Amino acid sequence: MSLASRILDGELRAAARLMRNLDDGFRSAVDDMKELYSHTGRAFILGITGPPGAGKSTLVDQLTAAYREQGKRVGVVAIDPTSPFTGGAILGDRIRMNRHADDPGVFIRSLATRGHMGGLSRSTADVVNVMDAMGMEVVIIETVGVGQDEIDIVRLAHTTVVVSVPGLGDDIQAIKAGVLEIGDVFVVNKADRDGADRTARELAAMLEMKKTVPGDWLPKVMMTEASRNRGIAELVDEIALHRSWLADSGTLERIRQERSVRHFEELLRERLFAEVFGHIRVNGRYREIVEAMASRRTDPYSAVDAVISERLGTPCQES
Amino acid sequence: MSLASRILDGELRAAARLMRNLDDGFRSAVDDMKELYSHTGRAFILGITGPPGAGKSTLVDQLTAAYREQGKRVGVVAIDPTSPFTGGAILGDRIRMNRHADDPGVFIRSLATRGHMGGLSRSTADVVNVMDAMGMEVVIIETVGVGQDEIDIVRLAHTTVVVSVPGLGDDIQAIKAGVLEIGDVFVVNKADRDGADRTARELAAMLEMKKTVPGDWLPKVMMTEASRNRGIAELVDEIALHRSWLADSGTLERIRQERSVRHFEELLRERLFAEVFGHIRVNGRYREIVEAMASRRTDPYSAVDAVISERLGTPCQES
Repeated sequence: MSLASRILDGELRAAARLMRNLDDGFRSAVDDMKELYSHTGRAFILGITGPPGAGKSTLVDQLTAAYREQGKRVGVVAIDPTSPFTGGAILGDRIRMNRHADDPGVFIRSLATRGHMGGLSRSTADVVNVMDAMGMEVVIIETVGVGQDEIDIVRLAHTTVVVSVPGLGDDIQAIKAGVLEIGDVFVVNKADRDGADRTARELAAMLEMKKTVPGDWLPKVMMTEASRNRGIAELVDEIALHRSWLADSGTLERIRQERSVRHFEELLRERLFAEVFGHIRVNGRYREIVEAMASRRTDPYSAVDAVISERLGTPCQES
Repeated sequence: MSLASRILDGELRAAARLMRNLDDGFRSAVDDMKELYSHTGRAFILGITGPPGAGKSTLVDQLTAAYREQGKRVGVVAIDPTSPFTGGAILGDRIRMNRHADDPGVFIRSLATRGHMGGLSRSTADVVNVMDAMGMEVVIIETVGVGQDEIDIVRLAHTTVVVSVPGLGDDIQAIKAGVLEIGDVFVVNKADRDGADRTARELAAMLEMKKTVPGDWLPKVMMTEASRNRGIAELVDEIALHRSWLADSGTLERIRQERSVRHFEELLRERLFAEVFGHIRVNGRYREIVEAMASRRTDPYSAVDAVISERLGTPCQES
């Protein structure tokens, strides 16, 4: 019985196994994903992003609890910053959301930013698809919204919540300006702190400068204290409003199609490299190139040209 | 006369032109890079990273002035965060380092994080190679050290300077832990601010916990006020010490080889995708796939399988 069938039968361990197989680049994982694909497209995908220290994990924890109270199953994909040398995620599943650990209606997966070169967004899309096929009705993607990769990942979501906190300083504005454009809902968390009202007013003022046309979604700024569960119900309502708007305006279908196209391109990029790189490692070509570069007999540009023409020079089977 | 030859003749405009051609993916740019490659390997590559607001740009400006006083030519590659929608760099060449604008011994290039998907590190390596071939004796790479991409880029440097400032809050520690491992020199900038000594002590304490063996480089924590040019001479000296250590320990040669190998892999990844993607766009296959995915007749996994086997199915010219 394939892992995909076992996942469709509700076996949680099979899902965890498939996610590991995807990480390890097992060929069989692709077959499982093909089998699961027709069962995807039902989950609501919610992105949560913001700077380190904004309280995103606590917010995700509270949102998870709120959706569980509505009887919905919840998947969480947390993109954790990684130590570049040890390769380990700094935060991890283990310290995340302990109170949901024994709830079979919650499935949590941490993805480390390391080891996904050029492919973190692809990995996230794969994991979201697995959770979607498993029947998770809400899938929450949480990223630290500073790097470009992280922003790209959140753009996979249907609704994106951008979390701020008071007191991050004006210097961070340049970054904020980028994140401003991707938010559907803005949250000022830790709203009990000094300066929360000012942060909310500044955000609202920046949002008002955006050019809009009638029918556009107009993002609001919400106040929360996630650690005390304040403002969460209102946030859940606002997210639901955005979701209705997505469906009514036809935007949901457009996002779904854009997600597939991007996923295709990212899979193609990664698989092409994996196939060709695997090939030249096995046949000794890679070793030759590394040695030739070390002794300056070749350079990276010429070596790539050679490999490309060896592998793609003559299209083999034109369709 | 090729752009490469004009660059080797010292024509600055030719260098700017080649960098644009690289951005635009012109085929001729690869030939220019091949021609330039044998003239690279002489520049000292200095990475500067740290959170937004740490004063990195001012520090780079002062370091540039210090190297100019030593009579060295200086190249600067600034990786700027980009607005994800407008595609424009938020900071840019124009507001950077105005005082060096008329100095032909300084060449500045800003790279926006947007539009380099999976390739920002490759773009940076290309630009560093052009500057190296131009005869820039010091090439400074400046990134906002938060995202994984940015950390990967700084790892291209010979010496990496990690810049902190007092008062960023404890929440940023998780990120800091990652950056800690890549720094060869640590700087607490804005050293006149409250808490500077505490920040320096904390950094030093974290550094002391690192396991070392005799002969390892032991990073120091330096204090600077870049805006008043304080501590810059000492920082320049410390960087020079690290550079000597790199050469004496054989580490410099190892870094050089690792850089070539990574550059090869990144070029290969990007060129493979560009070739195949270009091909399926021209022959209509891409459009077919997008439509088939929209109507759910296929999925991204199966579509990638099909394209891969069409293009790589039978190796054409095994070497």
